[in-house]
Amino acid sequence: MSDSPIRFEIQSADSGTHARVARLHTPHGVVDTPAYMPVGTHGAVRGLTPEQVASTGTQMILGNTYHLHLRPGEDVVREAGGLHAFSAWSGPILTDSGGFQIFSLEQWNRMDENGVRFRSLVDGSMIELTPESAVRIQNDLGADIIMVLDHCPSLPAPRDKLEDAVERTTRWARRCKDAHERSDQALFGIVQGGGDEELRRKSLEGLLELDFPGYAIGGVSVGEEKREIHRVVAATAPLLPADRPRYLMGIGVEDDLLAGIAAGIDLFDCVLPTRNARNATLFSREGTIRIRNEKYQRDFRPLDPLCSCYTCQHFTRAYLRHLQLKKESLAGTLGSIHNIQYLQDLMSVCRGRIARGDFADFVRDFPAGFAEER
Amino acid sequence: MSDSPIRFEIQSADSGTHARVARLHTPHGVVDTPAYMPVGTHGAVRGLTPEQVASTGTQMILGNTYHLHLRPGEDVVREAGGLHAFSAWSGPILTDSGGFQIFSLEQWNRMDENGVRFRSLVDGSMIELTPESAVRIQNDLGADIIMVLDHCPSLPAPRDKLEDAVERTTRWARRCKDAHERSDQALFGIVQGGGDEELRRKSLEGLLELDFPGYAIGGVSVGEEKREIHRVVAATAPLLPADRPRYLMGIGVEDDLLAGIAAGIDLFDCVLPTRNARNATLFSREGTIRIRNEKYQRDFRPLDPLCSCYTCQHFTRAYLRHLQLKKESLAGTLGSIHNIQYLQDLMSVCRGRIARGDFADFVRDFPAGFAEER
Repeated sequence: MSDSPIRFEIQSADSGTHARVARLHTPHGVVDTPAYMPVGTHGAVRGLTPEQVASTGTQMILGNTYHLHLRPGEDVVREAGGLHAFSAWSGPILTDSGGFQIFSLEQWNRMDENGVRFRSLVDGSMIELTPESAVRIQNDLGADIIMVLDHCPSLPAPRDKLEDAVERTTRWARRCKDAHERSDQALFGIVQGGGDEELRRKSLEGLLELDFPGYAIGGVSVGEEKREIHRVVAATAPLLPADRPRYLMGIGVEDDLLAGIAAGIDLFDCVLPTRNARNATLFSREGTIRIRNEKYQRDFRPLDPLCSCYTCQHFTRAYLRHLQLKKESLAGTLGSIHNIQYLQDLMSVCRGRIARGDFADFVRDFPAGFAEER
Repeated sequence: MSDSPIRFEIQSADSGTHARVARLHTPHGVVDTPAYMPVGTHGAVRGLTPEQVASTGTQMILGNTYHLHLRPGEDVVREAGGLHAFSAWSGPILTDSGGFQIFSLEQWNRMDENGVRFRSLVDGSMIELTPESAVRIQNDLGADIIMVLDHCPSLPAPRDKLEDAVERTTRWARRCKDAHERSDQALFGIVQGGGDEELRRKSLEGLLELDFPGYAIGGVSVGEEKREIHRVVAATAPLLPADRPRYLMGIGVEDDLLAGIAAGIDLFDCVLPTRNARNATLFSREGTIRIRNEKYQRDFRPLDPLCSCYTCQHFTRAYLRHLQLKKESLAGTLGSIHNIQYLQDLMSVCRGRIARGDFADFVRDFPAGFAEER
């Protein structure tokens, strides 16, 4: 770990929960954690310029290896100077391994011990993703943090299938580590095991031997209920090494974030905040706003009067509703700016409450306490 | 004219052409002319924030009365404080009268001396647009410059139809002037007459009696060939009062702009630069770029290496191609920023060449001279 390209500096820990505040130092800058990473699937957070993303307080974004591999191809990104240069995002980036996308398109692929084969939706060609190629692609993309290829079964799944997935994920993690070639990228392991806490523990034990600089919880939000997610995260996150960043994959609306933080998670990503924004569903300290609703036709207040995002500083609910009804792409842009900043503000408040040691109160009273924190 | 809300200050005139440089003072700021106005159909230049629009050097934008009347309705815009407040564009705005949209959807409407009736595409209701209502709607929208309702026939059209349109446009112009109630908005007349120069002259004569603070040439680019447009503009524009702004409606790609400026036009609007941008067709000093073309796959140069727009300062052709192929809305945003700034830069260079008195040379050598002017 002495030669790790990242440094994880814990600043304070909550007394009543597992929550902690830290600074994650990466080759492209610092991330204050707990942190929410917006998803830039194709090398852009949909509809937003890098400046607009940065304006929300976002420090780190996520790129999807699966999508970037299909198009434009990691060779193009590498020749461009890597994903940072290609997409003009100069801050930290994390790429996933493609595992989640592959298994969520399960009917189109075949898997064996070597890896997964699937047919490209771009040109119909047969593509093979192995632990080695998943790492090689991510080495080409050049993110600050990259992920092992994991086997992520959808839930519910029988225990033997879950156990197979755990064991394969461990074997693949070793192959990923062996294949990883760049010292300026940190490779994280991924804990699998579905809703089975014993399998989660077993999965982690296998990974710990490989001494990753950070660990993720994968295989959540793949069909199971929300309270199942919270149970598994609460049981698993505290087991992950406390001195290294913990990343909960694919999770990121308010209650999930709070539950994750309380369990000791540091990093989150989720497409919902931006996808919902494009579909006219917006966060606010007064509750969710479905902006297409007729009641907003003459509502000349900001989306969230307590929000300091660009959208809330310049536009009214009436205008945003109008743009949505006209299917104006600016609606998605402005809504995404707001939804992302809303979560970044929430993360910021959480960090403050953890530092003050009363994060548990904040979670219990949520959303009441959020509106009071400015 | 002494109480006109606008002031048109001519600064220099070209010796070899009718081109002139002026400053148009409006209640919401100054416009340096010749000027290109991007089109904000629904109260937004598609996909761009007001800041992004302003970053291109744009000083004035156009809003479409027809579209804004259908949705959100001028009552909503008025209650919001007018189009400036509603859309958060604090600079000058011009609204058209809706005439062009109505006549381009000719099969769906019925016209008589009183006005035009058409069925709303929003809710199927029957809507009547008269000279009085077109002005009332524009009074509610609150743009700095508003337009009379004109009769704009598509071409080719028989002479008697053109003549009827001219006479009706004159009668409607008088009714518009009578209906106009706001002293902080300038109402412009519109010259019709199709390709018939005598009818164009007759149309202008009828309008001059009404003493408008500015005059537009309408009814061009409605089916006729480009060289026909240039002939009519060259014959008509110099007849318009030299001390007032001249506006050529719906025209705005490079050669049309240059021909219009040489004929003495001050204001232009056109949807093509932004529509083309969304469809991956981009201006450059090296010629038109169709960014989806495979040859740009690994082209890591800016769209136009001589352009100082946000897009060219941050992104490569390869990245813009990738976004276009992924149908990423950011592609349209970045392309529109570029195409608009390209035209604003062209306008700026034209103003400089007019001031230097060698605009005719610039037009003759175009595009060669453009790349040399920075």
